[in-house]
Amino acid sequence: MKLYTFFRSSASYRVRIALNLKGLEFEQIPIHLRRGGGEQLGAAYKAINPQALVPALEDAGRILTQSLAIMEYLEECHPQPPILPREPADRALVRSMALLIACEVHPIQNLRVLNHLKSTHKQSDEDINIWAQHWIDLGLSALQEMVLSVPHRNRFCFGDEPTLADICLVPQLANARRFKCALTAFPTLMRIEANCLPLPAFANAAPEKQPDAE
Amino acid sequence: MKLYTFFRSSASYRVRIALNLKGLEFEQIPIHLRRGGGEQLGAAYKAINPQALVPALEDAGRILTQSLAIMEYLEECHPQPPILPREPADRALVRSMALLIACEVHPIQNLRVLNHLKSTHKQSDEDINIWAQHWIDLGLSALQEMVLSVPHRNRFCFGDEPTLADICLVPQLANARRFKCALTAFPTLMRIEANCLPLPAFANAAPEKQPDAE
Repeated sequence: MKLYTFFRSSASYRVRIALNLKGLEFEQIPIHLRRGGGEQLGAAYKAINPQALVPALEDAGRILTQSLAIMEYLEECHPQPPILPREPADRALVRSMALLIACEVHPIQNLRVLNHLKSTHKQSDEDINIWAQHWIDLGLSALQEMVLSVPHRNRFCFGDEPTLADICLVPQLANARRFKCALTAFPTLMRIEANCLPLPAFANAAPEKQPDAE
Repeated sequence: MKLYTFFRSSASYRVRIALNLKGLEFEQIPIHLRRGGGEQLGAAYKAINPQALVPALEDAGRILTQSLAIMEYLEECHPQPPILPREPADRALVRSMALLIACEVHPIQNLRVLNHLKSTHKQSDEDINIWAQHWIDLGLSALQEMVLSVPHRNRFCFGDEPTLADICLVPQLANARRFKCALTAFPTLMRIEANCLPLPAFANAAPEKQPDAE
């Protein structure tokens, strides 16, 4: 498998964690999101992914895009260890936690939206930081409430094994720190993060450990 | 099943289509997103969905949120007729089309983001319209390229039966019209929409057909 990736992209970070959890080998093809105005916007990469976003995964001659679609694919093709629980309503809960981050937080604070706010909507660096903090804070607050609604106190967002929800949470918390969000209101999420970070699948997926890290 | 919904919410619209395609009966509980500053922000609804977003589906005593998680749940519990293809790589393609809309387009142009742009970032109504058009245009362009990359010319985004991708496309095109986007660049998407709209599952889910329509 080949992963088109950028070390700091949190959607790429998610897929690296999932590949590691499944014990799958993969080659990384770095796509630099800032160099030369963004390699993801060049014709070469858009021929691979017309969305001009990372990551993309090449497997068995097919190119797969969108991190959550890639991770559902990995779960279907390589079910062990599972990254979703077994019961449909529990699977829906974990997916909704992951989607809360992947839909309501991350795309609103990602690089291309921030660049657009700056260039077309004339927002200052400070405005942009306030914007990112707002959506991250709102999303993490809701996520923490969802986690607290799960019966029992668990090691992870749902249960005692990492799932899609944790895979989305950890990169989002890394982003939150980049935007200097106050995380003191999220002790439950911080506790879960502390349980994830030492696991090799998470540790080896960290941005600073990647071959394209700067 | 009870669906907490708003007639004009495109995430609610998606779930209504999916419930109709599966032939499932459901009761609608309207949550008005504008009345009284937004009923979704009140304590009563936040006790149901801490994300303060519609839709939410109540089934067998569980509350499910996030439209894509709800639709995956419906697919698992009521597999016929399927809204995802059978092969994992094809499922990933359909999911990535749906996620392209659900992550990269819809949340960036939805009501709460536009309200925030206006109140906190002092953007005019015209600025906001330009913002929404930009993200819709970018997303639909990428989606059309993905659809054109599917072998054969099909009735729908993937194949000859509607899937999650079409369920996300149709409400997004309704939004595009509300923001007066030029849709002439998307003949393939318009053709697919024309194949979807007459189907009873789509027609009966349309915003103007709902009990809370204004």
